[in-house]
Amino acid sequence: MSIDVSDVQAIPAAWTRTDLLDLESLSAEEITLILDAAESFREQTDGCTKKINVLQGTTVANLFFENSTRTRTSFSLAARRLGADTVDFSSSGSSLSKGETFIDTAKNIEAMGVDAVVVRHRTPGTPRLLSQNIGCAVVNAGDGPHEHPTQGLLDILTIRQQRESLAGLTVGLVGDIAHSRTARSNIWGLQKLGAHVIVCGPSTLVSKRWEEFDVEIAHNLDDILPRCDVLNLLRIQFERQQLRPFPSVREYALLYAMTAERMKAAKDDVLIMAPGPINRGVEVTPEVADGPHSVILDQVTNGLAVRMAVLWLITGANERNEPKPR
Amino acid sequence: MSIDVSDVQAIPAAWTRTDLLDLESLSAEEITLILDAAESFREQTDGCTKKINVLQGTTVANLFFENSTRTRTSFSLAARRLGADTVDFSSSGSSLSKGETFIDTAKNIEAMGVDAVVVRHRTPGTPRLLSQNIGCAVVNAGDGPHEHPTQGLLDILTIRQQRESLAGLTVGLVGDIAHSRTARSNIWGLQKLGAHVIVCGPSTLVSKRWEEFDVEIAHNLDDILPRCDVLNLLRIQFERQQLRPFPSVREYALLYAMTAERMKAAKDDVLIMAPGPINRGVEVTPEVADGPHSVILDQVTNGLAVRMAVLWLITGANERNEPKPR
Amino acid sequence: MSIDVSDVQAIPAAWTRTDLLDLESLSAEEITLILDAAESFREQTDGCTKKINVLQGTTVANLFFENSTRTRTSFSLAARRLGADTVDFSSSGSSLSKGETFIDTAKNIEAMGVDAVVVRHRTPGTPRLLSQNIGCAVVNAGDGPHEHPTQGLLDILTIRQQRESLAGLTVGLVGDIAHSRTARSNIWGLQKLGAHVIVCGPSTLVSKRWEEFDVEIAHNLDDILPRCDVLNLLRIQFERQQLRPFPSVREYALLYAMTAERMKAAKDDVLIMAPGPINRGVEVTPEVADGPHSVILDQVTNGLAVRMAVLWLITGANERNEPKPR
Repeated sequence: MSIDVSDVQAIPAAWTRTDLLDLESLSAEEITLILDAAESFREQTDGCTKKINVLQGTTVANLFFENSTRTRTSFSLAARRLGADTVDFSSSGSSLSKGETFIDTAKNIEAMGVDAVVVRHRTPGTPRLLSQNIGCAVVNAGDGPHEHPTQGLLDILTIRQQRESLAGLTVGLVGDIAHSRTARSNIWGLQKLGAHVIVCGPSTLVSKRWEEFDVEIAHNLDDILPRCDVLNLLRIQFERQQLRPFPSVREYALLYAMTAERMKAAKDDVLIMAPGPINRGVEVTPEVADGPHSVILDQVTNGLAVRMAVLWLITGANERNEPKPR
Repeated sequence: MSIDVSDVQAIPAAWTRTDLLDLESLSAEEITLILDAAESFREQTDGCTKKINVLQGTTVANLFFENSTRTRTSFSLAARRLGADTVDFSSSGSSLSKGETFIDTAKNIEAMGVDAVVVRHRTPGTPRLLSQNIGCAVVNAGDGPHEHPTQGLLDILTIRQQRESLAGLTVGLVGDIAHSRTARSNIWGLQKLGAHVIVCGPSTLVSKRWEEFDVEIAHNLDDILPRCDVLNLLRIQFERQQLRPFPSVREYALLYAMTAERMKAAKDDVLIMAPGPINRGVEVTPEVADGPHSVILDQVTNGLAVRMAVLWLITGANERNEPKPR
Repeated sequence: MSIDVSDVQAIPAAWTRTDLLDLESLSAEEITLILDAAESFREQTDGCTKKINVLQGTTVANLFFENSTRTRTSFSLAARRLGADTVDFSSSGSSLSKGETFIDTAKNIEAMGVDAVVVRHRTPGTPRLLSQNIGCAVVNAGDGPHEHPTQGLLDILTIRQQRESLAGLTVGLVGDIAHSRTARSNIWGLQKLGAHVIVCGPSTLVSKRWEEFDVEIAHNLDDILPRCDVLNLLRIQFERQQLRPFPSVREYALLYAMTAERMKAAKDDVLIMAPGPINRGVEVTPEVADGPHSVILDQVTNGLAVRMAVLWLITGANERNEPKPR
């Protein structure tokens, strides 16, 4: 079943951005506006399973220069549930391998009448560079260790659905903070909405430098466990690390994995989150990942709702602009 | 042109399954119900070229862990001709390569609001494992040497279109029986509908063990040829065999290839079938493959109709269930 | 937004072809008819950004046996903007790698109810072979060094939009003529519409043999520059050349790159074109590629419009034929 365009209202006048590059530059009001829109999409589409054709005639291009099935698929499904067409570009087999510059590739995509570009790239700042050079709406789907704003938003939406407000909550981000764009986007978003953030991990993954972010720094999970309303267990990104930052996986798990034993020391209503894909037995044991406190699969469903909201807002704002001459 | 939803009736009350895992567990009535639905789709869509939007708002995910352009495309086109959206996952580049378990990958796909998963995997039983762990409808698109139920159904539909009934027909399955999921699905389906099945090939590919299936075993094609109403020439799967089960391709062809010469010994109305892709000159010579007895391309068209029927039936039955809380 | 089917008229009676294999065999009237249709699509869809559902229920298959993101995407978007479904085949992972013949693969695609096949192959004549063996409409998307008719058409459309007529214009094709299907399609199309064509490049890339095409041959760009209304700067296809046909890239650029300096010797209203992806600094410097004379991105947008026109015309003509029995 699909819901008709006419059921949907215009995008809020308060939303003016034609890009989502990071959470750092967003105001608390803007973040709340995205979360509200996402919640509304989730309700209207019955958990994101139905179509709501507000972006019919719109084309969304995925420009992924790092492997990602999960995030790419989430964006594709979000776009198509809004009635948009999608098209995938990848680095292999593309014109980039024939010597074209990144900006030329993007300008070509724009010239094909694409309305929004979703970009993932290992170089921080690539989405911003793109948005400065093309007229399409741009969404950052992860730029190296910098930010992954839709992941931050879906994490925050998942918490908000379980608690009335973010204000006053204590959120522990555990694990591989150093390599994590998810950590950065979470920190910016959570702090703007009034949460207290603790980053926790071995000192090789959580350095002094994080004090700049005004977060609490911890190296012992058991010390902070009783105070946390939420534990977001970040992936150990084995595929990104040249040097192993801890003696062994077993040792990491002993110190930082959420286990049934550790759950006893946590708050009664603690939320267990993980951005996935999870390494079972490393960041979290199966009992906890599949247990009653886990909202890991809710995060996935909310990912779709958040991406629907973002694509709807930024393309709508872009349409209000004077169109560029082609 | 597309046909409207309202033209289509509800799925038959007699159909209750939310998965198609094999033909072994289906009753003759269930098989007939799928074939009837497929025939109706083929008629309504004028040979599967038009759309009939009964699955609008539904998403079908292809989860193929073995290379397959043909079967994957057939499922994708079947889904889209029903108005569904499709999304492709493959093993390379997916979260599996980042250490995630197969079940976690599937649960993530489910959490994205996917309604049906079409799975191909080299391990027998994978589709069943999936169906036990997720709420989506599941279709087996081939699990190792076990079963390939939609291939069995499309073969049977093709025979039924040429003869009034399967009952009493003699069907020869020729060639690489040992490695063939197609053979197993054909045997189960054909026997349930009353056909007599002969499996025929060199003893390295057709062992005594097949007596368990209650089929007739033959090693000499020329002996059984005059009795067969249908010859289904299975592919020699060169890519699956470590050891060559016969001295040479030339020798195999001498003994088992359907040639113009052998056609003289066959029944006047014999049907020549092959699941494809065919090795011309190995299982069948070009004159026979392209001759008047060949229904090889009909099989392809029926593949779409059968897959439309299966996707329509299992997602419809799943919708009648109490929805799971997300 | 999408435009309804009823807004669109039937395809012109003057168009009878069910294939686009080359520009060599097209008449000036047929070329003009495609250009007019493309122009109309571009206007109706507001620069190719909106949908116009004239091919709903139609399926277009991309059968690309050479890497191409750009052309494949352009065809896919063109098909989907017309409301068609698209499906991609590639050589790797397809049945071809399992020993199937090219024609068998194509017949299988046809049997799945595909209406049009867009084919790219490194062997000249492959699209014609295909069109002789299947009933689908066929578009040549590049067959080795032979032709690339939609590229020729989009180049010509881009010139026609800037000048009233092609008649009497002088067009310089500069660079890698020897390996260029784009050059061949441009030559045929431009000459039929009354333009004078000069091919210009080092003698290793522009041989005497080109006299057969009735074009002017030049080896010194500076000699012909003042006479050209249009300069189409063909890519140096580094990836196709076993032997380097010039001493160094630097030397090539010195002699043939369009630079700001050379622009001074060109006509005041000269058009700078390039089929892309461009090698900045080799065929053209950034100042010229991004300057006011450049219509390079217009070419990309016109590519979509031309492909929409071609797919609409050939599938429409094919539908007027007696349908083949399936």
